[in-house]
Amino acid sequence: MTMDGIWTLCECGYDTERVISNGNTFLLGNGYLGCRGTLDEHTRAHMAAVNLAGVYDRCGSSWRETVNAPNPLFGCLDCSGVPLAAGDGSMSSHLHELDFRHGVSRRETVWKVRMNEKAPPVTVILSTERFVSMDDIHLLASRWTVTVDAACELTLRSGIDQEVYDCNGPHLTRFLRQMDEVPDIGPVETVRAWTGESGVEVAVSRFSSISDGAIHLSAGQSLEFVVFGSVYTSQDTPTAAQSCLETIAKACRDGYDTVYDSHYRCWEHLWEGSEVEIGGDLQAQKAINYSLYHLHCIAPRHGKGLSIAARGLSGQTYKGAVFWDTEIFMLPFFLHTEPSVARSFLEYRINGLPGALAKAAEYGFEGAFYAWESQEHGYEACSDYNVTDVFSGRPQRTYFRDKQIHISADVVYALWEYVEYTGDLSILREGGLEMILQCARFYYSYAYLNLRKNRIEFLDVIGPDEYHERVSNNAFTNRMVLHVFEVLRLAVSRLSSVSPKDKAFVESIVDGPALAAFETVAQWIYVPKPRPDGVVEQFDGYFKQEDCSLDDVRSRLLKPNEYWGGNNGVAAHTQVIKQADVIALQQLFADDYDVRTVKANWDYYEKRTEHGSSLSSCMYALTACRIGYLERAKHLFLSSALVDMVGGGKQFAGDIYIGGTHPASAGGAWMIAVLGFGGFRLERGLPVADGKLPQDWKYLRYRILVDGRRYMVTIRDSVSVIEPMDV
Amino acid sequence: MTMDGIWTLCECGYDTERVISNGNTFLLGNGYLGCRGTLDEHTRAHMAAVNLAGVYDRCGSSWRETVNAPNPLFGCLDCSGVPLAAGDGSMSSHLHELDFRHGVSRRETVWKVRMNEKAPPVTVILSTERFVSMDDIHLLASRWTVTVDAACELTLRSGIDQEVYDCNGPHLTRFLRQMDEVPDIGPVETVRAWTGESGVEVAVSRFSSISDGAIHLSAGQSLEFVVFGSVYTSQDTPTAAQSCLETIAKACRDGYDTVYDSHYRCWEHLWEGSEVEIGGDLQAQKAINYSLYHLHCIAPRHGKGLSIAARGLSGQTYKGAVFWDTEIFMLPFFLHTEPSVARSFLEYRINGLPGALAKAAEYGFEGAFYAWESQEHGYEACSDYNVTDVFSGRPQRTYFRDKQIHISADVVYALWEYVEYTGDLSILREGGLEMILQCARFYYSYAYLNLRKNRIEFLDVIGPDEYHERVSNNAFTNRMVLHVFEVLRLAVSRLSSVSPKDKAFVESIVDGPALAAFETVAQWIYVPKPRPDGVVEQFDGYFKQEDCSLDDVRSRLLKPNEYWGGNNGVAAHTQVIKQADVIALQQLFADDYDVRTVKANWDYYEKRTEHGSSLSSCMYALTACRIGYLERAKHLFLSSALVDMVGGGKQFAGDIYIGGTHPASAGGAWMIAVLGFGGFRLERGLPVADGKLPQDWKYLRYRILVDGRRYMVTIRDSVSVIEPMDV
Repeated sequence: MTMDGIWTLCECGYDTERVISNGNTFLLGNGYLGCRGTLDEHTRAHMAAVNLAGVYDRCGSSWRETVNAPNPLFGCLDCSGVPLAAGDGSMSSHLHELDFRHGVSRRETVWKVRMNEKAPPVTVILSTERFVSMDDIHLLASRWTVTVDAACELTLRSGIDQEVYDCNGPHLTRFLRQMDEVPDIGPVETVRAWTGESGVEVAVSRFSSISDGAIHLSAGQSLEFVVFGSVYTSQDTPTAAQSCLETIAKACRDGYDTVYDSHYRCWEHLWEGSEVEIGGDLQAQKAINYSLYHLHCIAPRHGKGLSIAARGLSGQTYKGAVFWDTEIFMLPFFLHTEPSVARSFLEYRINGLPGALAKAAEYGFEGAFYAWESQEHGYEACSDYNVTDVFSGRPQRTYFRDKQIHISADVVYALWEYVEYTGDLSILREGGLEMILQCARFYYSYAYLNLRKNRIEFLDVIGPDEYHERVSNNAFTNRMVLHVFEVLRLAVSRLSSVSPKDKAFVESIVDGPALAAFETVAQWIYVPKPRPDGVVEQFDGYFKQEDCSLDDVRSRLLKPNEYWGGNNGVAAHTQVIKQADVIALQQLFADDYDVRTVKANWDYYEKRTEHGSSLSSCMYALTACRIGYLERAKHLFLSSALVDMVGGGKQFAGDIYIGGTHPASAGGAWMIAVLGFGGFRLERGLPVADGKLPQDWKYLRYRILVDGRRYMVTIRDSVSVIEPMDV
Repeated sequence: MTMDGIWTLCECGYDTERVISNGNTFLLGNGYLGCRGTLDEHTRAHMAAVNLAGVYDRCGSSWRETVNAPNPLFGCLDCSGVPLAAGDGSMSSHLHELDFRHGVSRRETVWKVRMNEKAPPVTVILSTERFVSMDDIHLLASRWTVTVDAACELTLRSGIDQEVYDCNGPHLTRFLRQMDEVPDIGPVETVRAWTGESGVEVAVSRFSSISDGAIHLSAGQSLEFVVFGSVYTSQDTPTAAQSCLETIAKACRDGYDTVYDSHYRCWEHLWEGSEVEIGGDLQAQKAINYSLYHLHCIAPRHGKGLSIAARGLSGQTYKGAVFWDTEIFMLPFFLHTEPSVARSFLEYRINGLPGALAKAAEYGFEGAFYAWESQEHGYEACSDYNVTDVFSGRPQRTYFRDKQIHISADVVYALWEYVEYTGDLSILREGGLEMILQCARFYYSYAYLNLRKNRIEFLDVIGPDEYHERVSNNAFTNRMVLHVFEVLRLAVSRLSSVSPKDKAFVESIVDGPALAAFETVAQWIYVPKPRPDGVVEQFDGYFKQEDCSLDDVRSRLLKPNEYWGGNNGVAAHTQVIKQADVIALQQLFADDYDVRTVKANWDYYEKRTEHGSSLSSCMYALTACRIGYLERAKHLFLSSALVDMVGGGKQFAGDIYIGGTHPASAGGAWMIAVLGFGGFRLERGLPVADGKLPQDWKYLRYRILVDGRRYMVTIRDSVSVIEPMDV
């Protein structure tokens, strides 16, 4: 991996070991679909996939997950019968490149093909370029150029590859392949496929300006052709296949260059509102925009009530489900640059009330218990057995599903962030208030009064740190729950004061006695206080757990991929934690904790933290900025921002594949840059910045949208300048 | 194993595989010590052991457990240099016998020793008899007879074997061996040994009427000699070694026959008060008295405040600790036949208040949280890791220690049974009331109010069924806790009404406001009610667990000795349970449930019960008697009564050895016979019997002590006759 240019990612040579990881690194996407960064000739064996946002299916009793569409960009060549593929023996060079400013990937591969022992080899150069249009989200395009240095016969085999990769598939169980003759364009191939569980149609069409078969090229001659693909599902329109044809037809009429330009301009437009510049640190500079690239690739702009899965559109890992990652780690970027996307996330949760109500009821609670792994309508995708015990090979009972009760509060937290930042109360009218109320009802029903201590406690939960299951009075969770009751009170009073109509609306949702009961509970909720040295106990009894180092814990591993948590994991009964927990609390409720306290907790917990989650570094870095640990913050910033660029991160939990992109890290990187180093915040609705940069950063510049106005903020020499931008 | 005679257990032949199991089957004991049923020549390799009641030691970081004394009965022979041991090639027959009416074991082994190839073999017959005196608990005795059919030279090697078997030892770390010349008796060998942890002295003396060395016997000649052993510890007297010598001296003066007679008469006396006769079913007849034999062997009659370990005096399994087995499954036998022993159990718990208070404080609770595995002063012996995961070899976090909160209530339940049966209120004055109060305080501090459901709940516990850890609202536990508050109220009112002095005493222990608070809690305690079909849910969510058969669960085992419970055991997330739980509740609170309800629960739960604990069959059998399932009750009775006779029972949980005798099964067998089939109960202080027998039992006769008077109860032809006995 070379770092040639701050907007280009480039890999020279072909490494079989990196194919799957590169599928994430070179990902293309437009929020509607994600096209894994594999090569033209790649198939299911390489995890080539066109991952569809929000289309789910379950095959048998396997995990429910998102669906991959048939791949319209498949194509491969041979030269006089010798197959040409990256990595083949005849390959002499290979370059794979991503222009992540414009969402375009290119490959150039050179083969030297020896027809017979006497003749010199024929050099074949294949250059292709592909993108998934940011302008028309149903469109994929690719342009091929093949050059040879001697006369030869190439054979092209291309088309829609319906042999789709699946983690827990197959999901497409019925296929119909048809060829339509489109006037003025010619034959267009279409594959219609249906999911097994609920019969969602996934239609894919493909046009190529060249037909498959043998092509004679003379020395020095180039062959160039373009391919358009289109994808619709019956969730978009009842006439998915027809819409595919129309998209193809339009692209053909417009031509490749026009389609490319529209796509290109869309990306430029996105950067106008979101680009972050870091002067003096090329690695950081490149990493932050690469992170934002990934967020743009998966931002759902094509509808209302859409959200982002924990691994974005890079595949089916984590069931393509939405986690709290979105609300807490991705939403801030969009809230500050493109609030309509942030609103969409919240609408997704509002629309997900049925699932959350059902989940609460399933466990005997009232109100809304939001899913840890949320799919359509908010239904929980997580099973009771989410990890495999590597020793016995048995599924292992985990409690992510039933005990991670903070998710409902995370959603409310995000909603309130949105309301506070945008002043947009309409979301409260459009289901937001109802959602807050249902979350409050959930926590009310989950609450227990400790008679002796005369306080409300939340027992038997999992906090952010998932290595410690079934703990009580997790400080993060308890404070978040308290916040839900606070938000309910604020939302009620804020909306009631707008107009008599709003007041009546509020009263139709929540009555006085209920509010009074919630007030009482809120008053007695136990939020663990710092002990004399300032450290807050993560949960009841945490300080009594074995206090050993990360290295100690690691040295106890008997197998490299064994799960650290659960009942018997190496970390489970120690003070070693997976990710920010108390520190997440102190970041999300920064006003509750003074700098001295945050510092005490940072010093205590950071060295006990594995950072085994993409949700960890961000919280540590943000608090580090606050307490002046700028170099450590930079280190954590880089580990957040670089995770997908270097293709790191854990690939397995137990025996379960968990690879893919890490949009929460990407969102976290933005938070660290802008909200941490950049010191951005609103004060009484006005943008304020109070930036502090690590030593080698000469300047930091970012774009922010406040109340419909765009600002450019520049931090240089400890001075922060906020300038309005023309939009 | 043949069943030759209702008071004799007999094994012909020698099976190496059964040596450890026979150590339990042929156990001798007198409440002070247990002498494992091994042979004279056996050593630590055969788990020969003299297990001491109530003497504990911890070696390094291993589990704390009871201590085994050096063995004074060791002895072995050789014949012209050929060693003679059971199982040797020259052995021609072997018989091992236990007279369990009198606690005497005998062995007779015949060897045919060939001195050279030409001569015919010499037949050597070794007969020994041994007992541990029920009359003088510090005394062990053995008589040897050796006969030969041809002239030969035997060599005797005998003495105090200080190479003691230990599960988690060595516990005796310092030894002093001395030889004293006792006037009129001769040389007496003494080993003084000290435990490593707290330096308890264990002194063992031994007298033999013959010296070690070569003995010439002529054809047909017999050699006879006797051995006396004595054991004292510094927990008995500061001059343990001296007391040993005195005991030996007295035995020598009295002679073997006199010592034997005294021992014999003690046993006869015990049977006068406890024998159970079952007419028409020899197996049942034999099994019940064999069970009572084991209870008598371990009954601590030699002091106040003594109790019985879960594996009696058969070894160090379960750390030699006292479990709730004693209060719920052994106490009833003694309560009805020898109430001073029952009182001793309760005194043990009263004396154990310091440990129970410390344990509650350790977990942040008030009052008395009684140990799951109780050692001296009630201190908890259980570690957090009580099972080994057979797959990874790692200790497995179990929750027996921290979540099995019902133990305190079990103790209170037993105390109240004692008070109700005997009318003896003095125990309340002597710490009993304080104990009840401290248990109530514990539960008060453990209680949570469910705001929405407006009831007190007990969360995150383990009930009797240990395969389901960390459950909430275990019906058994909640009802037992309610009983504690009821008992407190009854004890206060009962004692207060005796005299002004008692009233003042009560008020000095517990004040009015505290009582009022307890009353309020008691009023709102949630005890799960039967659902419409009568079945009571074992704990919150039990009915939602996978409902599969015992065979299903068993078929999922990957290793034969893997633990079924814990977080990932094969039974943990199914409805398969280890032992009676709801059924235990319905037996202990029989008045709360009508016959129809008990029947519904029996039918539901029995087929889901593994009976993987000695505490299971008893409860099922007692309730079976109540609902008229007499033949099934008989089957369960036999499985309780026979467990030690056939040497069955689980030998391993994970990798931990759990073998030994099962006194709770023995106590349970008595309960089934007398309280179940025998229909015995008190009504207004008077004995009532309402017996019902299984088909092939012609009659049932048992002895009962009520208010100092002994009765013989006979059930025959559905008629129960109660006759006073002369005592």
